[in-house]
Amino acid sequence: MAVSIIILAAGQGTRMRSTLPKVLHRLAGRPLLSHVITKARQLNPDQIIIVYGHGGETVPKAISEKDIIWVQQELQLGTGHAVAQALPYINQNSMILVLYGDVPLVGVETLQELLTVVGERRVGLVTVELSNPTGYGRIIRDKSGEVAKIVEEADANAAQREVREVNTGIMAIESHYLEQIIPKISNNNAQGEYYLTDTIEQTIIEGGRVTTVSVSDSIEVMGVNDRKQLAHLERTYQAREVTRLMQEGISFSDPERFDLRGELKAGQDIYIDVNVILEGQVVLGDNVKIGPNCYIRDTVLEAGVEVFANCVIEGAIVDTQARIGPFARIRPETVLSEKTHIGNFVEIKKSAIGKNSKINHLSYIGDATVGKEVNVGAGTITCNYDGANKHHTIIEDNAFIGSDTQLIAPVKIGVGATIGAGSTITRDTPPGELTLSRSSQQTRPKWKRPTKDKRN
Amino acid sequence: MAVSIIILAAGQGTRMRSTLPKVLHRLAGRPLLSHVITKARQLNPDQIIIVYGHGGETVPKAISEKDIIWVQQELQLGTGHAVAQALPYINQNSMILVLYGDVPLVGVETLQELLTVVGERRVGLVTVELSNPTGYGRIIRDKSGEVAKIVEEADANAAQREVREVNTGIMAIESHYLEQIIPKISNNNAQGEYYLTDTIEQTIIEGGRVTTVSVSDSIEVMGVNDRKQLAHLERTYQAREVTRLMQEGISFSDPERFDLRGELKAGQDIYIDVNVILEGQVVLGDNVKIGPNCYIRDTVLEAGVEVFANCVIEGAIVDTQARIGPFARIRPETVLSEKTHIGNFVEIKKSAIGKNSKINHLSYIGDATVGKEVNVGAGTITCNYDGANKHHTIIEDNAFIGSDTQLIAPVKIGVGATIGAGSTITRDTPPGELTLSRSSQQTRPKWKRPTKDKRN
Amino acid sequence: MAVSIIILAAGQGTRMRSTLPKVLHRLAGRPLLSHVITKARQLNPDQIIIVYGHGGETVPKAISEKDIIWVQQELQLGTGHAVAQALPYINQNSMILVLYGDVPLVGVETLQELLTVVGERRVGLVTVELSNPTGYGRIIRDKSGEVAKIVEEADANAAQREVREVNTGIMAIESHYLEQIIPKISNNNAQGEYYLTDTIEQTIIEGGRVTTVSVSDSIEVMGVNDRKQLAHLERTYQAREVTRLMQEGISFSDPERFDLRGELKAGQDIYIDVNVILEGQVVLGDNVKIGPNCYIRDTVLEAGVEVFANCVIEGAIVDTQARIGPFARIRPETVLSEKTHIGNFVEIKKSAIGKNSKINHLSYIGDATVGKEVNVGAGTITCNYDGANKHHTIIEDNAFIGSDTQLIAPVKIGVGATIGAGSTITRDTPPGELTLSRSSQQTRPKWKRPTKDKRN
Repeated sequence: MAVSIIILAAGQGTRMRSTLPKVLHRLAGRPLLSHVITKARQLNPDQIIIVYGHGGETVPKAISEKDIIWVQQELQLGTGHAVAQALPYINQNSMILVLYGDVPLVGVETLQELLTVVGERRVGLVTVELSNPTGYGRIIRDKSGEVAKIVEEADANAAQREVREVNTGIMAIESHYLEQIIPKISNNNAQGEYYLTDTIEQTIIEGGRVTTVSVSDSIEVMGVNDRKQLAHLERTYQAREVTRLMQEGISFSDPERFDLRGELKAGQDIYIDVNVILEGQVVLGDNVKIGPNCYIRDTVLEAGVEVFANCVIEGAIVDTQARIGPFARIRPETVLSEKTHIGNFVEIKKSAIGKNSKINHLSYIGDATVGKEVNVGAGTITCNYDGANKHHTIIEDNAFIGSDTQLIAPVKIGVGATIGAGSTITRDTPPGELTLSRSSQQTRPKWKRPTKDKRN
Repeated sequence: MAVSIIILAAGQGTRMRSTLPKVLHRLAGRPLLSHVITKARQLNPDQIIIVYGHGGETVPKAISEKDIIWVQQELQLGTGHAVAQALPYINQNSMILVLYGDVPLVGVETLQELLTVVGERRVGLVTVELSNPTGYGRIIRDKSGEVAKIVEEADANAAQREVREVNTGIMAIESHYLEQIIPKISNNNAQGEYYLTDTIEQTIIEGGRVTTVSVSDSIEVMGVNDRKQLAHLERTYQAREVTRLMQEGISFSDPERFDLRGELKAGQDIYIDVNVILEGQVVLGDNVKIGPNCYIRDTVLEAGVEVFANCVIEGAIVDTQARIGPFARIRPETVLSEKTHIGNFVEIKKSAIGKNSKINHLSYIGDATVGKEVNVGAGTITCNYDGANKHHTIIEDNAFIGSDTQLIAPVKIGVGATIGAGSTITRDTPPGELTLSRSSQQTRPKWKRPTKDKRN
Repeated sequence: MAVSIIILAAGQGTRMRSTLPKVLHRLAGRPLLSHVITKARQLNPDQIIIVYGHGGETVPKAISEKDIIWVQQELQLGTGHAVAQALPYINQNSMILVLYGDVPLVGVETLQELLTVVGERRVGLVTVELSNPTGYGRIIRDKSGEVAKIVEEADANAAQREVREVNTGIMAIESHYLEQIIPKISNNNAQGEYYLTDTIEQTIIEGGRVTTVSVSDSIEVMGVNDRKQLAHLERTYQAREVTRLMQEGISFSDPERFDLRGELKAGQDIYIDVNVILEGQVVLGDNVKIGPNCYIRDTVLEAGVEVFANCVIEGAIVDTQARIGPFARIRPETVLSEKTHIGNFVEIKKSAIGKNSKINHLSYIGDATVGKEVNVGAGTITCNYDGANKHHTIIEDNAFIGSDTQLIAPVKIGVGATIGAGSTITRDTPPGELTLSRSSQQTRPKWKRPTKDKRN
C-alpha cells in the first residue's frame, strides 16, 4: 500500500523562548523539520504533507524542499485537529504515517517496521520504555498483552504511573480508517484541544486493534521542547556521527570535540584533531590531516592534504598534498592545485593557485589566477577592488613576487617575472624580467627622534 | 535579628601546591573568596568579617570589595581559633553565620533557610548526605532525630561510619551564645587545633539544641582542597550557568564547550558555537551569532551582530548588524557602528568606525576615527606611534584607502578622498581627491635572478 | 633472573580500516608500539624482541628506537607462532615476558608484580575482572583457587560464561620452560592458528602451575582493535595525565579540553585555558599562563611567560615574562628574550629577539637577529628569501622600524636607527639616524573615481 506521511509542524515551542518557530531551530546545521523530511523521504512515500501554523509562512519559506504539500493550520487546536487539516489532501487507500517536526532523530527502521506490522490491525503506534515516564501517556495493556488504553499522567492511578511504556505519538493508520475516526474525537478536555492520541481510544472502542513497535533507544522519539533538549539531541547526533566515521576509518583525537553539520564523504586514514567543524558538503581524500580548531565548509580536500591549526576554509577545492595554514582563510571559489602551500595570515578568495606555488605569509590574493611554481612574498596584496568594480590579477608560471607588493588589478605578471619588494604594480610586467617601483634609500642625518610629550 | 557573616579565609591549601593563598584561586575568573562574598551580600548582612591568615595581606589586597572587616589570624590554630579572632568585631545581638572562603557554590536559599530555622534553638548547622562520607564528621542523631553529636572519621565506630549525613561546617549561632561558648572549646586533640565543630558538642553538653538544614546537592557545600576539585567546581559552575542561559533563550551547539567568567546580559535567539569564552561584563543583543573559538571580554554586541570563527574582542561596543572576523582582534575602547565589517587578520584598537565602513583584510587601525561608508583596503596601517607618543588618525566619510597604505598620524583623510595603493600619507589629504605617493614602475631588463648558493 | 621481553606487533588490525599497521596508530602523538616499548624499558630487560609482520618493514622503520631485536613473522599463524619466531633470539635462563604492541597502557607495576610472583611456579598470567566478559577467555579455577583452565567464549558452558575473570594474554614464563612447551601447542582449531594461550593449558597438563596477577583497572589491559577503542584509550590517557598535572600544581579551566602528546616539565602555579595542545618536549616555568586554543610544540616557556588566545608555537625558547599573541605564530629555532612582546598576526621564524623588544602587529620576521629595546612597527617584513637563498637580517639595539617596512636581507639596521614607515631598505642603515625610502605625497585633482561597471 502506498504511504502518505503527515508531518505535524505547527507548534510554537514556547519553552524555546524564541521568535523562530520551533521546527526551524537547527540540529547539526539544519532545521529540525528538514531532518524529519529526510527521514520521511527514505520511506519513499507517495506524498509528504506538512501541517504548519505557528510562524505562518516562515516555515514553508525556510524549507527549500520540493514535492511537499504544505497545509496551514490557522488555529492550533491540537494534534488531532492538525491531522484533520491534512485529511483533504491525502491519497485514497494509502497508509498514513504521522511524524513530528520536532522529533528529528526518529529511526527509519522503526518506521519501516511500523508500516509492516500495522497491516489489518488498523492502528500502529510507536512506544518506548522510559526509566522516568513522568508526564507521558502510559500504554495500558490487557492480560493478553493487547493495548487497552492510553492513560495520560493526570488521569493515571498509582499502578498506572508505574508503567514505563509510553506513547510517542508516532502512528500509522490506513487512510479510510483515519477519515472515519478523526471526526469522532472531541475537544472535551482541560485544554480544549483535539488530541490525535484519542484516535487510539476510539479504535479500541470500535473494536479495532492497536499494534505497537517499541524503540529501544529513546533518543529516536525524543522531541525538542527547549534549548537544553535541543543541545542534548545535537550532542547525541554528533556522537553517533563520529562513531560511524570512526568505524569507517577516520581517527579523531577527541570524538567529543567534533561537529559535522552536513555530509562528509571520506577516504581512509584521515586524522582529525580537536574542535574541527565540518559544514555542508565536505569531501576528504585518503590521508588528509586536519589540525585543531579548523572550520571547513563545502570543501574538497584531496588525498594527502594537510590543514594546520586554526584555519577557516569555505567553498574550496584543494588538490593532493597541498598544505594550508596555520591561520589561513580560504574563501569560496578558490582552487588550490597539487602541492600548493598557503601559510599563515593569508586570505585567498575566488582564485586559482597553480601547482607547487607558495603564498606563505600575510597576503591577500583575491580574484586572481596564479600559475605554477610561483612564489608570492609576504605581505602581497592583489588590489582587486577600485571602489566600484572588481578586477582580475594574473600571475604566470614561475613568477617571484617580492614582499609587500601591491598588484593593482587588472594586471598580469609575465612568466618568470620577478617583482621587487615593496612595489606598486600598475601595469603588466614583462616575462623573465625584474620589475619594481622603488624610491631610493636615503638617510637624513639631522633628524631627531620625537620625545615623550609631557602632556601625555 | 541582624546578621553578621564571618568568612574563614585563612587556610593555606597545601594540596593546591601553590604560592597563592587558596581562597584566591579562581573559579569562573574570580577568586573563590569573591564568590563567597557575593553570596554573603545576598543575605543583606550588617557586617561581613573575613578572617585571613596564610598569604598575609595578599588576600585583602586581591579582593577589591568595600565594607569588609578584615581580621588577621596570625597563627592558624584551627577554625575555632579563627572565629575567636572575629569575635571582637561582631555586632551585639546579631545572628552569626559562618561561611568558608573555599566553599564558593554555597546556596543562598540554604543559608536563608538556616537563618530562619536556627531561632531559639541556639545552633544551626548545614549538613549533607554523601554517597561516600569517608573523611567527614558524621552527624549522629538520637532516637528522636535530634543531633546527639558529631563524630570525626578517626573516632567513628563501624555503625557510625555507615552514617552518610555529614557536617559541612556552615553554621549559624546567636552572637551572645557564640561568645559564651567559643572560650570553652579546647585544642586537646591530635592536631592541637581549636575546632569550630566542637561548639556543636559544647552546645549539646550545655543542653542547647542543634537544628540542621540539609542540602540535597552536595556541590553547594563542596570545598576546594586541590586543583582537581577546583576544576570540578569550575565545570559544575559552568554547567549550571549554561543550563540557565539555555532556559533564557540562548542556543549552544555544545553546552560543555562554553565558559562564562563574569556576567552575561543577553537577548533572545542568540546562537553560540563551540569553545566560546565570555569574560567580565558582556551584553549580547537579540539574534547575535558568535562563531567557534571566540574570546570576548567586557563587550557589548548589539542585536544582529555576527562574529565569525576565531575572534578576540575586548572592551568593545559593537552596534547592530556589524560583522566581525574570522580572525579579527578588537581591542579596548573600540566602537564599531551599525553594519561595519571587520575582516580577517585585522586589529582595531581604541578607534571608532562609522556606519557601513569596511576594514576587511590584514590591517591595523589604532587611535583612529573612521567615518561612514569608508573602505579601508587590505594592509592599511595607521602609524599611530612615533616611538614616543601616540597620535590620532581621522578618516572622514566615504574615503577610500588603497591597499598597503600607511597613514602617519596625526593625519586626516578628507571626506570622499581616495588614497592610492601603497602610499605613505604624511600630511592631511584634501576631500574628494586622489592622493598618493608612488614611484614609477620600472623594468630592469639586464637583471638576473640569484642562483642557489652552493655553500648552502 | 634477567628479563627478556617479547612484544607481539604483527597484527593487521582489520577493523582499524587502515593501510597503516595497527601498532603504528598513534596514542598521545606516539605509535601504540612506542608506548609499549617505553613500558618495557622501565622493567630494565636484557633484551626487547619485537615480532612484526603485517605491514612488513614499515613497522621497524617507523620506530626509531635502539637496542630492539626485530623478528619478522612472515605468515601470521597466531600468537603462539609469533612467540615461536622469537625463541631463537631469547637469552638462555631468562624470564620471558610477553606484551602486546596494541595494549599501550599496560601498568609497569602490574608487570613488576607479575615478574615477582611467577617464580618457580612456571607461568604467570595477568587477568582482569570485566563487568561484561563476553568474547574473552574465562579463567576457570578449581576449588583451591588454582587456575584449572582457560575456556574460550565459544567453548564455555552457561556457568563458565558467568565468570568475569578473563585472560589478558600478558604472561611471564621462564625461557627454558617456554622453549619446552611452545612446540607442544597445536593449530588444531577453527582458525587453524597457534594460540599462546594454549601454553597455559599445556602447563597445567604437565603439572605446572599458573600464578595470576589481577589488574583492578581494565584500561591497563585494553587492546586497540578499532578507532573507537583508540579514541577511548586516548581520552583515558589524557584524563590520567591531566589529573597528574593538577596534582603537581597546574590549573586547567577544563581538564577534558587539554591534550598532552609528549612530555611536560612544569613549574608551579601554571594556568592553562581550554583547548590547549602541548606536543613533544615542553617546559613551562612558574606562573606561565596559556590562553585558549593554543598549540605548543617542543618549546620552553620560562617563568611568567603569558601566551594569549589562538597561538601556534613550535621549537621556541621564550624567556621570562615575554608576552605572545593572540594570533601569534612562532616557528622553530626562535629565541625570545625576557619581556619581549609578540603581538597579533605576527610570524617569527628562526630568529632571536632581544630583551624588551616589541613586534606587535602583522609582521614577518625570519632569519633575523633583533637586539634589545627594538620597536618593530606593524607590517614589517624581513625579505629573507631572494628566490634562491635565505639571507640574514640584523636589527641592532634600540632601533625603531616604521610600519610597513621591507628589510631586504642581508641587511643591518644600526644601533638606535630609525626607519621611516613604508620604506624598502636594501642597504645597511647607519646607527642613530633616520633612514627611509619614500616618494613624495601628491594629490591629483582631476582624477575621478571609477564608476560601477554596468556589465557587472
